[in-house]
Amino acid sequence: MQDVIILGTGNVAEHLFKAFSSKDSVQVTQVYGRNSESLKKFSAYTETCSDPKTIKDAAIYIIAVNDMAIAPVSKLLSNKKGIIVHTSGAISIDDIASKNAGIFYPLQTFTKGKTLDFKSIPICIEAKQKSDLIELNKLASSMSDHVHEITSEQRKKLHLAAVFSNNFTNHLYQISKDLCKDSGLSFSLLKPLIKETADKVQYIPPKDAQTGPARRGDKKSIESHLNLLKNKKQTELYILFSEAITKMYEEKL
Amino acid sequence: MQDVIILGTGNVAEHLFKAFSSKDSVQVTQVYGRNSESLKKFSAYTETCSDPKTIKDAAIYIIAVNDMAIAPVSKLLSNKKGIIVHTSGAISIDDIASKNAGIFYPLQTFTKGKTLDFKSIPICIEAKQKSDLIELNKLASSMSDHVHEITSEQRKKLHLAAVFSNNFTNHLYQISKDLCKDSGLSFSLLKPLIKETADKVQYIPPKDAQTGPARRGDKKSIESHLNLLKNKKQTELYILFSEAITKMYEEKL
Repeated sequence: MQDVIILGTGNVAEHLFKAFSSKDSVQVTQVYGRNSESLKKFSAYTETCSDPKTIKDAAIYIIAVNDMAIAPVSKLLSNKKGIIVHTSGAISIDDIASKNAGIFYPLQTFTKGKTLDFKSIPICIEAKQKSDLIELNKLASSMSDHVHEITSEQRKKLHLAAVFSNNFTNHLYQISKDLCKDSGLSFSLLKPLIKETADKVQYIPPKDAQTGPARRGDKKSIESHLNLLKNKKQTELYILFSEAITKMYEEKL
Repeated sequence: MQDVIILGTGNVAEHLFKAFSSKDSVQVTQVYGRNSESLKKFSAYTETCSDPKTIKDAAIYIIAVNDMAIAPVSKLLSNKKGIIVHTSGAISIDDIASKNAGIFYPLQTFTKGKTLDFKSIPICIEAKQKSDLIELNKLASSMSDHVHEITSEQRKKLHLAAVFSNNFTNHLYQISKDLCKDSGLSFSLLKPLIKETADKVQYIPPKDAQTGPARRGDKKSIESHLNLLKNKKQTELYILFSEAITKMYEEKL
Protein backbone atom coordinates (compact mmCIF):
# COMPACT_ATOMS: atom_id res chain seq x y z
CA MET A 1 0.00 0.00 0.00
CA GLN A 2 1.39 3.40 -0.99
CA ASP A 3 0.10 6.39 0.92
CA VAL A 4 -0.21 9.58 -1.07
CA ILE A 5 -1.02 13.18 -0.23
CA ILE A 6 -2.30 15.41 -3.00
CA LEU A 7 -1.57 19.14 -2.90
CA GLY A 8 -3.99 21.04 -5.09
CA THR A 9 -7.73 20.93 -5.74
CA GLY A 10 -8.03 21.63 -9.48
CA ASN A 11 -8.79 19.41 -12.44
CA VAL A 12 -5.64 17.30 -12.38
CA ALA A 13 -5.84 16.86 -8.59
CA GLU A 14 -9.44 15.71 -8.86
CA HIS A 15 -8.79 13.29 -11.73
CA LEU A 16 -5.79 11.78 -9.93
CA PHE A 17 -7.75 11.51 -6.69
CA LYS A 18 -10.55 9.61 -8.42
CA ALA A 19 -8.12 7.33 -10.24
CA PHE A 20 -6.20 6.49 -7.04
CA SER A 21 -9.40 5.97 -5.08
CA SER A 22 -10.31 2.99 -7.23
CA LYS A 23 -6.97 1.25 -6.55
CA ASP A 24 -6.41 -1.05 -3.57
CA SER A 25 -2.65 -0.48 -3.68
CA VAL A 26 -2.90 3.29 -3.15
CA GLN A 27 -4.45 5.35 -0.39
CA VAL A 28 -4.85 9.11 -0.58
CA THR A 29 -4.55 10.00 3.08
CA GLN A 30 -4.95 13.77 2.72
CA VAL A 31 -5.70 16.52 0.24
CA TYR A 32 -4.22 19.96 0.85
CA GLY A 33 -5.61 23.15 -0.65
CA ARG A 34 -5.46 26.82 0.35
CA ASN A 35 -9.12 27.28 -0.40
CA SER A 36 -11.34 25.35 2.00
CA GLU A 37 -14.32 25.74 -0.34
CA SER A 38 -12.60 23.76 -3.12
CA LEU A 39 -11.58 21.07 -0.61
CA LYS A 40 -15.23 20.18 -0.04
CA LYS A 41 -15.41 17.83 -3.04
CA PHE A 42 -12.70 15.68 -1.42
CA SER A 43 -13.75 15.87 2.24
CA ALA A 44 -16.40 13.18 2.00
CA TYR A 45 -13.75 10.68 0.92
CA THR A 46 -10.54 11.60 2.77
CA GLU A 47 -8.96 14.02 5.21
CA THR A 48 -8.43 17.54 3.92
CA CYS A 49 -6.45 20.50 5.23
CA SER A 50 -5.87 24.12 4.31
CA ASP A 51 -3.21 24.84 6.94
CA PRO A 52 0.25 23.78 5.65
CA LYS A 53 1.33 23.00 9.22
CA THR A 54 -1.19 20.17 9.38
CA ILE A 55 0.09 18.36 6.29
CA LYS A 56 0.78 14.80 7.44
CA ASP A 57 3.63 12.42 6.65
CA ALA A 58 3.27 10.28 3.54
CA ALA A 59 5.34 8.17 1.15
CA ILE A 60 4.53 10.37 -1.83
CA TYR A 61 3.39 13.99 -2.16
CA ILE A 62 1.82 14.96 -5.47
CA ILE A 63 1.81 18.67 -6.20
CA ALA A 64 -0.98 19.21 -8.74
CA VAL A 65 -1.18 23.00 -8.91
CA ASN A 66 -0.56 25.52 -11.67
CA ASP A 67 3.02 25.85 -12.91
CA MET A 68 3.79 29.08 -11.10
CA ALA A 69 2.69 27.68 -7.73
CA ILE A 70 4.82 24.51 -7.83
CA ALA A 71 7.97 26.02 -6.29
CA PRO A 72 6.18 27.82 -3.41
CA VAL A 73 3.98 24.79 -2.63
CA SER A 74 6.99 22.46 -2.63
CA LYS A 75 8.56 24.66 0.05
CA LEU A 76 5.69 23.78 2.38
CA LEU A 77 7.10 20.24 2.32
CA SER A 78 10.71 21.09 3.09
CA ASN A 79 10.77 19.05 6.31
CA LYS A 80 9.10 15.98 4.80
CA LYS A 81 10.82 12.69 4.03
CA GLY A 82 8.46 11.42 1.33
CA ILE A 83 8.98 11.71 -2.40
CA ILE A 84 7.75 15.08 -3.69
CA VAL A 85 6.55 15.18 -7.30
CA HIS A 86 4.76 17.64 -9.53
CA THR A 87 2.49 16.88 -12.47
CA SER A 88 3.54 19.56 -14.95
CA GLY A 89 4.92 19.02 -18.44
CA ALA A 90 6.77 22.31 -18.56
CA ILE A 91 8.42 22.76 -15.16
CA SER A 92 11.87 21.47 -14.24
CA ILE A 93 12.36 18.89 -11.53
CA ASP A 94 14.59 21.49 -9.85
CA ASP A 95 11.60 23.69 -9.01
CA ILE A 96 11.16 21.22 -6.17
CA ALA A 97 14.00 22.02 -3.78
CA SER A 98 14.39 18.53 -2.31
CA LYS A 99 16.64 15.54 -2.88
CA ASN A 100 13.43 13.50 -3.00
CA ALA A 101 12.12 15.47 -5.96
CA GLY A 102 10.36 13.73 -8.83
CA ILE A 103 7.89 14.08 -11.67
CA PHE A 104 4.55 12.39 -12.19
CA TYR A 105 3.28 13.81 -15.50
CA PRO A 106 0.08 12.33 -16.92
CA LEU A 107 0.02 13.32 -20.60
CA GLN A 108 -3.62 14.10 -21.16
CA THR A 109 -6.08 16.98 -21.26
CA PHE A 110 -8.35 16.87 -18.23
CA THR A 111 -11.87 18.19 -18.38
CA LYS A 112 -13.92 18.96 -15.31
CA GLY A 113 -16.55 16.28 -14.83
CA LYS A 114 -15.42 14.07 -17.74
CA THR A 115 -14.16 10.70 -16.54
CA LEU A 116 -11.09 9.31 -18.29
CA ASP A 117 -9.68 5.83 -18.45
CA PHE A 118 -6.25 6.23 -16.88
CA LYS A 119 -5.18 2.81 -18.14
CA SER A 120 -4.44 4.28 -21.57
CA ILE A 121 -2.96 7.60 -20.40
CA PRO A 122 0.85 7.77 -20.61
CA ILE A 123 2.42 8.71 -17.28
CA CYS A 124 5.92 10.14 -17.53
CA ILE A 125 8.02 9.81 -14.40
CA GLU A 126 11.39 11.06 -13.26
CA ALA A 127 13.18 11.13 -9.91
CA LYS A 128 16.45 12.38 -8.51
CA GLN A 129 16.97 9.13 -6.62
CA LYS A 130 16.82 5.65 -8.12
CA SER A 131 14.83 4.25 -5.18
CA ASP A 132 12.24 7.01 -5.62
CA LEU A 133 11.93 6.15 -9.30
CA ILE A 134 11.02 2.59 -8.36
CA GLU A 135 8.30 3.87 -6.02
CA LEU A 136 6.94 6.25 -8.66
CA ASN A 137 6.93 3.48 -11.23
CA LYS A 138 4.90 1.35 -8.84
CA LEU A 139 2.41 4.17 -8.27
CA ALA A 140 2.11 5.02 -11.97
CA SER A 141 1.78 1.37 -12.98
CA SER A 142 -1.09 0.92 -10.57
CA MET A 143 -3.20 3.22 -12.73
CA SER A 144 -1.71 3.19 -16.23
CA ASP A 145 -0.41 0.60 -18.69
CA HIS A 146 1.88 3.23 -20.21
CA VAL A 147 4.54 4.37 -17.77
CA HIS A 148 7.61 6.07 -19.25
CA GLU A 149 10.80 7.12 -17.51
CA ILE A 150 11.91 10.27 -19.31
CA THR A 151 14.24 13.16 -18.55
CA SER A 152 13.19 16.75 -17.85
CA GLU A 153 14.59 17.74 -21.27
CA GLN A 154 12.48 15.08 -23.00
CA ARG A 155 9.44 16.09 -20.99
CA LYS A 156 9.77 19.74 -22.04
CA LYS A 157 9.90 18.70 -25.70
CA LEU A 158 6.98 16.35 -25.19
CA HIS A 159 4.99 19.15 -23.60
CA LEU A 160 5.79 21.35 -26.59
CA ALA A 161 4.59 18.57 -28.91
CA ALA A 162 1.43 18.35 -26.82
CA VAL A 163 0.86 22.08 -27.30
CA PHE A 164 0.83 21.47 -31.07
CA SER A 165 -1.39 18.37 -30.81
CA ASN A 166 -3.83 19.77 -28.31
CA ASN A 167 -3.79 23.57 -27.88
CA PHE A 168 -3.19 24.49 -31.51
CA THR A 169 -5.43 21.74 -32.84
CA ASN A 170 -8.21 23.00 -30.61
CA HIS A 171 -7.71 26.48 -32.02
CA LEU A 172 -8.10 25.06 -35.53
CA TYR A 173 -11.41 23.57 -34.39
CA GLN A 174 -12.37 27.05 -33.19
CA ILE A 175 -11.52 28.60 -36.57
CA SER A 176 -13.55 25.88 -38.31
CA LYS A 177 -16.47 26.66 -36.06
CA ASP A 178 -16.21 30.38 -36.87
CA LEU A 179 -16.12 29.62 -40.61
CA CYS A 180 -19.24 27.47 -40.28
CA LYS A 181 -20.98 30.19 -38.32
CA ASP A 182 -20.14 32.77 -41.03
CA SER A 183 -22.09 30.61 -43.47
CA GLY A 184 -25.00 29.82 -41.19
CA LEU A 185 -23.82 26.22 -40.77
CA SER A 186 -23.60 24.20 -37.58
CA PHE A 187 -20.20 23.17 -36.22
CA SER A 188 -21.71 19.72 -35.67
CA LEU A 189 -21.25 19.09 -39.41
CA LEU A 190 -17.50 18.90 -38.78
CA LYS A 191 -17.54 16.75 -35.66
CA PRO A 192 -17.38 13.34 -37.37
CA LEU A 193 -14.48 14.61 -39.51
CA ILE A 194 -12.63 15.88 -36.44
CA LYS A 195 -13.08 12.55 -34.72
CA GLU A 196 -11.99 10.52 -37.73
CA THR A 197 -8.92 12.74 -38.32
CA ALA A 198 -7.74 12.00 -34.78
CA ASP A 199 -8.67 8.34 -35.11
CA LYS A 200 -6.77 7.92 -38.37
CA VAL A 201 -3.36 8.78 -36.88
CA GLN A 202 -3.83 6.16 -34.19
CA TYR A 203 -3.10 3.63 -36.97
CA ILE A 204 -1.59 5.55 -39.91
CA PRO A 205 1.44 7.90 -39.69
CA PRO A 206 0.32 11.54 -40.13
CA LYS A 207 2.60 11.86 -43.13
CA ASP A 208 0.60 9.16 -44.94
CA ALA A 209 -2.73 10.48 -43.66
CA GLN A 210 -2.16 13.97 -45.10
CA THR A 211 -4.65 15.04 -47.77
CA GLY A 212 -5.95 18.35 -49.11
CA PRO A 213 -5.09 21.07 -51.62
CA ALA A 214 -1.56 21.74 -50.31
CA ARG A 215 -0.74 18.03 -50.22
CA ARG A 216 -1.66 17.58 -53.89
CA GLY A 217 -0.25 20.94 -55.01
CA ASP A 218 -3.69 22.19 -56.02
CA LYS A 219 -2.97 25.92 -56.35
CA LYS A 220 -6.42 26.71 -57.73
CA SER A 221 -8.18 25.45 -54.58
CA ILE A 222 -5.68 27.23 -52.35
CA GLU A 223 -6.33 30.50 -54.16
CA SER A 224 -10.07 30.04 -53.96
CA HIS A 225 -9.83 29.35 -50.21
CA LEU A 226 -7.70 32.44 -49.66
CA ASN A 227 -10.38 34.49 -51.42
CA LEU A 228 -12.96 33.17 -48.97
CA LEU A 229 -10.97 34.10 -45.86
CA LYS A 230 -11.66 37.53 -44.41
CA ASN A 231 -9.79 37.23 -41.10
CA LYS A 232 -6.10 38.19 -41.16
CA LYS A 233 -4.87 35.58 -38.66
CA GLN A 234 -6.85 32.84 -40.43
CA THR A 235 -5.31 33.89 -43.75
CA GLU A 236 -1.81 33.89 -42.28
CA LEU A 237 -2.35 30.43 -40.81
CA TYR A 238 -3.76 29.12 -44.09
CA ILE A 239 -0.72 30.37 -46.01
CA LEU A 240 1.78 29.10 -43.45
CA PHE A 241 0.22 25.62 -43.26
CA SER A 242 -0.03 25.37 -47.03
CA GLU A 243 3.63 26.34 -47.41
CA ALA A 244 4.72 23.90 -44.70
CA ILE A 245 2.72 21.00 -46.15
CA THR A 246 3.89 21.75 -49.70
CA LYS A 247 7.49 21.89 -48.50
CA MET A 248 7.21 18.61 -46.62
CA TYR A 249 6.01 16.69 -49.68
CA GLU A 250 8.36 18.39 -52.10
CA GLU A 251 11.20 17.19 -49.88
CA LYS A 252 9.76 13.70 -50.01
CA LEU A 253 9.82 13.54 -53.82
CA MET B 1 -35.34 1.20 -55.50
CA GLN B 2 -32.92 3.84 -56.78
CA ASP B 3 -30.44 2.73 -59.39
CA VAL B 4 -27.08 4.41 -59.26
CA ILE B 5 -23.99 4.41 -61.47
CA ILE B 6 -20.70 5.40 -59.91
CA LEU B 7 -18.02 7.07 -62.06
CA GLY B 8 -14.62 6.74 -60.46
CA THR B 9 -12.70 3.98 -58.73
CA GLY B 10 -10.84 5.79 -55.94
CA ASN B 11 -11.35 5.97 -52.22
CA VAL B 12 -14.63 7.87 -52.21
CA ALA B 13 -16.06 5.71 -55.01
CA GLU B 14 -15.17 2.55 -53.09
CA HIS B 15 -16.57 3.78 -49.77
CA LEU B 16 -19.81 4.89 -51.42
CA PHE B 17 -20.09 1.62 -53.31
CA LYS B 18 -19.74 -0.38 -50.10
CA ALA B 19 -22.22 1.80 -48.24
CA PHE B 20 -24.82 1.54 -51.04
CA SER B 21 -24.30 -2.20 -51.37
CA SER B 22 -25.63 -2.77 -47.88
CA LYS B 23 -28.88 -0.89 -48.60
CA ASP B 24 -31.96 -2.60 -50.07
CA SER B 25 -33.28 0.69 -51.42
CA VAL B 26 -30.25 1.36 -53.65
CA GLN B 27 -28.67 -0.66 -56.42
CA VAL B 28 -25.34 0.24 -57.97
CA THR B 29 -25.90 -1.06 -61.48
CA GLN B 30 -22.51 -0.09 -62.93
CA VAL B 31 -19.12 1.37 -62.05
CA TYR B 32 -17.22 3.31 -64.70
CA GLY B 33 -13.48 3.89 -64.64
CA ARG B 34 -10.86 4.60 -67.28
CA ASN B 35 -8.47 2.13 -65.78
CA SER B 36 -9.71 -1.44 -66.08
CA GLU B 37 -7.23 -2.59 -63.45
CA SER B 38 -8.81 -0.44 -60.75
CA LEU B 39 -12.28 -1.64 -61.77
CA LYS B 40 -11.40 -5.16 -60.67
CA LYS B 41 -12.31 -4.54 -57.03
CA PHE B 42 -15.90 -3.78 -58.12
CA SER B 43 -16.36 -6.38 -60.84
CA ALA B 44 -17.18 -9.25 -58.49
CA TYR B 45 -20.18 -7.28 -57.21
CA THR B 46 -21.56 -5.31 -60.17
CA GLU B 47 -21.13 -4.50 -63.84
CA THR B 48 -18.10 -2.37 -64.69
CA CYS B 49 -17.05 -0.51 -67.83
CA SER B 50 -14.10 1.52 -69.03
CA ASP B 51 -15.63 2.62 -72.35
CA PRO B 52 -17.76 5.75 -71.85
CA LYS B 53 -20.04 4.63 -74.69
CA THR B 54 -21.17 1.65 -72.64
CA ILE B 55 -22.33 3.69 -69.65
CA LYS B 56 -25.93 2.62 -69.04
CA ASP B 57 -29.01 4.59 -68.10
CA ALA B 58 -29.62 5.19 -64.42
CA ALA B 59 -31.61 7.42 -62.09
CA ILE B 60 -28.50 8.88 -60.49
CA TYR B 61 -24.88 9.19 -61.66
CA ILE B 62 -22.30 9.85 -58.97
CA ILE B 63 -19.04 11.31 -60.21
CA ALA B 64 -16.46 10.45 -57.55
CA VAL B 65 -13.21 11.51 -59.21
CA ASN B 66 -10.59 14.13 -58.40
CA ASP B 67 -11.70 17.76 -58.67
CA MET B 68 -9.99 18.48 -61.97
CA ALA B 69 -11.65 15.51 -63.69
CA ILE B 70 -15.24 16.32 -62.69
CA ALA B 71 -16.02 18.60 -65.67
CA PRO B 72 -14.57 16.25 -68.34
CA VAL B 73 -16.21 13.15 -66.80
CA SER B 74 -19.57 14.93 -66.59
CA LYS B 75 -19.38 15.54 -70.34
CA LEU B 76 -19.42 11.78 -70.91
CA LEU B 77 -22.98 11.90 -69.54
CA SER B 78 -24.29 14.75 -71.71
CA ASN B 79 -26.98 12.60 -73.33
CA LYS B 80 -28.20 11.05 -70.05
CA LYS B 81 -31.49 11.85 -68.36
CA GLY B 82 -30.55 10.86 -64.80
CA ILE B 83 -29.40 13.21 -62.08
CA ILE B 84 -25.65 13.85 -62.30
CA VAL B 85 -23.87 14.68 -59.06
CA HIS B 86 -20.30 15.04 -57.90
CA THR B 87 -18.89 14.41 -54.43
CA SER B 88 -16.46 17.31 -54.07
CA GLY B 89 -16.49 19.99 -51.41
CA ALA B 90 -14.67 22.54 -53.50
CA ILE B 91 -16.15 22.35 -56.99
CA SER B 92 -19.16 24.33 -58.17
CA ILE B 93 -22.36 22.62 -59.25
CA ASP B 94 -21.85 24.40 -62.58
CA ASP B 95 -18.86 22.20 -63.43
CA ILE B 96 -21.53 19.69 -64.40
CA ALA B 97 -23.01 21.08 -67.59
CA SER B 98 -26.50 19.64 -67.18
CA LYS B 99 -29.85 20.87 -65.94
CA ASN B 100 -29.91 17.68 -63.86
CA ALA B 101 -26.76 18.65 -62.00
CA GLY B 102 -26.43 18.12 -58.29
CA ILE B 103 -24.07 17.60 -55.37
CA PHE B 104 -23.65 14.62 -53.08
CA TYR B 105 -20.87 15.63 -50.70
CA PRO B 106 -20.07 13.27 -47.82
CA LEU B 107 -18.10 15.35 -45.32
CA GLN B 108 -15.51 12.89 -44.11
CA THR B 109 -11.92 11.78 -44.69
CA PHE B 110 -11.84 8.40 -46.39
CA THR B 111 -8.99 6.01 -45.82
CA LYS B 112 -8.34 3.06 -48.06
CA GLY B 113 -9.38 -0.12 -46.32
CA LYS B 114 -10.84 1.56 -43.22
CA THR B 115 -14.58 0.99 -42.92
CA LEU B 116 -16.67 3.94 -41.77
CA ASP B 117 -20.15 4.11 -40.35
CA PHE B 118 -21.97 6.25 -42.91
CA LYS B 119 -24.91 6.72 -40.52
CA SER B 120 -23.02 9.47 -38.69
CA ILE B 121 -21.38 11.09 -41.73
CA PRO B 122 -23.02 14.37 -42.82
CA ILE B 123 -24.05 14.29 -46.47
CA CYS B 124 -24.52 17.70 -48.07
CA ILE B 125 -26.78 17.78 -51.08
CA GLU B 126 -27.74 20.35 -53.68
CA ALA B 127 -29.61 20.17 -56.99
CA LYS B 128 -30.60 22.52 -59.75
CA GLN B 129 -34.09 21.05 -59.86
CA LYS B 130 -36.41 20.63 -56.87
CA SER B 131 -37.48 17.12 -57.95
CA ASP B 132 -33.83 16.05 -58.15
CA LEU B 133 -33.24 17.36 -54.64
CA ILE B 134 -36.01 15.10 -53.37
CA GLU B 135 -34.36 12.09 -55.07
CA LEU B 136 -30.94 12.99 -53.67
CA ASN B 137 -32.40 13.44 -50.21
CA LYS B 138 -33.88 9.96 -50.49
CA LEU B 139 -30.55 8.49 -51.56
CA ALA B 140 -28.55 10.29 -48.88
CA SER B 141 -31.08 9.45 -46.15
CA SER B 142 -30.79 5.77 -47.01
CA MET B 143 -27.22 5.80 -45.73
CA SER B 144 -26.88 8.74 -43.33
CA ASP B 145 -28.86 10.24 -40.46
CA HIS B 146 -27.36 13.65 -41.23
CA VAL B 147 -28.49 14.97 -44.60
CA HIS B 148 -28.13 18.70 -45.18
CA GLU B 149 -29.37 20.77 -48.11
CA ILE B 150 -26.77 23.50 -48.53
CA THR B 151 -25.79 25.92 -51.30
CA SER B 152 -22.55 25.79 -53.31
CA GLU B 153 -21.38 28.90 -51.46
CA GLN B 154 -21.98 27.25 -48.10
CA ARG B 155 -20.31 24.07 -49.29
CA LYS B 156 -17.16 25.94 -50.31
CA LYS B 157 -16.94 27.54 -46.88
CA LEU B 158 -17.59 24.19 -45.23
CA HIS B 159 -14.82 22.63 -47.28
CA LEU B 160 -12.49 25.41 -46.19
CA ALA B 161 -13.46 24.74 -42.56
CA ALA B 162 -12.74 21.05 -43.18
CA VAL B 163 -9.26 21.95 -44.45
CA PHE B 164 -8.58 23.60 -41.08
CA SER B 165 -10.13 20.73 -39.07
CA ASN B 166 -8.56 17.93 -41.04
CA ASN B 167 -5.61 18.89 -43.28
CA PHE B 168 -4.02 21.45 -40.96
CA THR B 169 -4.78 19.44 -37.82
CA ASN B 170 -3.07 16.45 -39.39
CA HIS B 171 -0.03 18.59 -40.13
CA LEU B 172 0.07 19.59 -36.44
CA TYR B 173 0.12 15.87 -35.62
CA GLN B 174 3.06 15.53 -38.01
CA ILE B 175 4.95 18.36 -36.30
CA SER B 176 4.25 16.75 -32.91
CA LYS B 177 5.60 13.48 -34.21
CA ASP B 178 8.78 15.20 -35.47
CA LEU B 179 9.26 16.89 -32.08
CA CYS B 180 8.93 13.54 -30.31
CA LYS B 181 11.40 11.96 -32.72
CA ASP B 182 13.93 14.76 -32.05
CA SER B 183 13.88 13.73 -28.39
CA GLY B 184 13.92 10.00 -28.96
CA LEU B 185 10.29 9.67 -27.89
CA SER B 186 7.53 7.67 -29.54
CA PHE B 187 4.61 9.47 -31.20
CA SER B 188 2.36 6.93 -29.48
CA LEU B 189 2.79 8.95 -26.27
CA LEU B 190 0.62 11.65 -27.85
CA LYS B 191 -2.08 9.44 -29.32
CA PRO B 192 -4.41 9.40 -26.28
CA LEU B 193 -4.13 13.20 -26.07
CA ILE B 194 -4.94 13.58 -29.77
CA LYS B 195 -7.99 11.36 -29.39
CA GLU B 196 -9.24 13.13 -26.28
CA THR B 197 -8.73 16.58 -27.85
CA ALA B 198 -11.01 15.59 -30.73
CA ASP B 199 -13.45 13.89 -28.37
CA LYS B 200 -13.71 16.92 -26.09
CA VAL B 201 -15.12 19.23 -28.78
CA GLN B 202 -17.86 16.73 -29.54
CA TYR B 203 -19.43 17.95 -26.27
CA ILE B 204 -17.68 21.19 -25.28
CA PRO B 205 -17.30 24.27 -27.56
CA PRO B 206 -13.64 24.66 -28.64
CA LYS B 207 -13.56 28.12 -27.06
CA ASP B 208 -14.23 26.55 -23.65
CA ALA B 209 -11.93 23.59 -24.31
CA GLN B 210 -8.92 25.82 -25.04
CA THR B 211 -6.00 25.41 -22.62
CA GLY B 212 -2.25 26.00 -22.77
CA PRO B 213 0.33 28.76 -22.34
CA ALA B 214 -1.25 31.19 -24.84
CA ARG B 215 -4.72 30.72 -23.32
CA ARG B 216 -3.50 31.64 -19.84
CA GLY B 217 -1.10 34.34 -21.02
CA ASP B 218 1.92 32.41 -19.75
CA LYS B 219 4.71 34.29 -21.54
CA LYS B 220 7.46 32.38 -19.73
CA SER B 221 6.33 29.00 -21.13
CA ILE B 222 5.86 30.50 -24.60
CA GLU B 223 9.41 31.83 -24.53
CA SER B 224 10.81 28.54 -23.30
CA HIS B 225 8.95 26.68 -26.09
CA LEU B 226 10.27 29.07 -28.72
CA ASN B 227 13.79 28.37 -27.47
CA LEU B 228 13.22 24.65 -28.01
CA LEU B 229 12.04 25.03 -31.61
CA LYS B 230 14.73 24.76 -34.27
CA ASN B 231 12.56 24.57 -37.40
CA LYS B 232 11.57 27.90 -38.96
CA LYS B 233 8.08 26.91 -40.08
CA GLN B 234 7.34 25.35 -36.69
CA THR B 235 8.47 28.53 -34.98
CA GLU B 236 6.33 30.67 -37.27
CA LEU B 237 3.30 28.48 -36.59
CA TYR B 238 3.94 28.56 -32.85
CA ILE B 239 4.07 32.36 -32.84
CA LEU B 240 1.03 32.75 -35.07
CA PHE B 241 -1.12 30.35 -33.03
CA SER B 242 -0.04 31.93 -29.76
CA GLU B 243 -0.90 35.39 -31.06
CA ALA B 244 -4.26 34.21 -32.40
CA ILE B 245 -5.22 32.44 -29.18
CA THR B 246 -4.06 35.35 -27.02
CA LYS B 247 -6.07 37.77 -29.17
CA MET B 248 -9.21 35.62 -28.99
CA TYR B 249 -9.24 35.57 -25.21
CA GLU B 250 -8.24 39.19 -24.79
CA GLU B 251 -11.28 40.06 -26.87
CA LYS B 252 -13.38 37.90 -24.62
CA LEU B 253 -12.37 39.78 -21.47
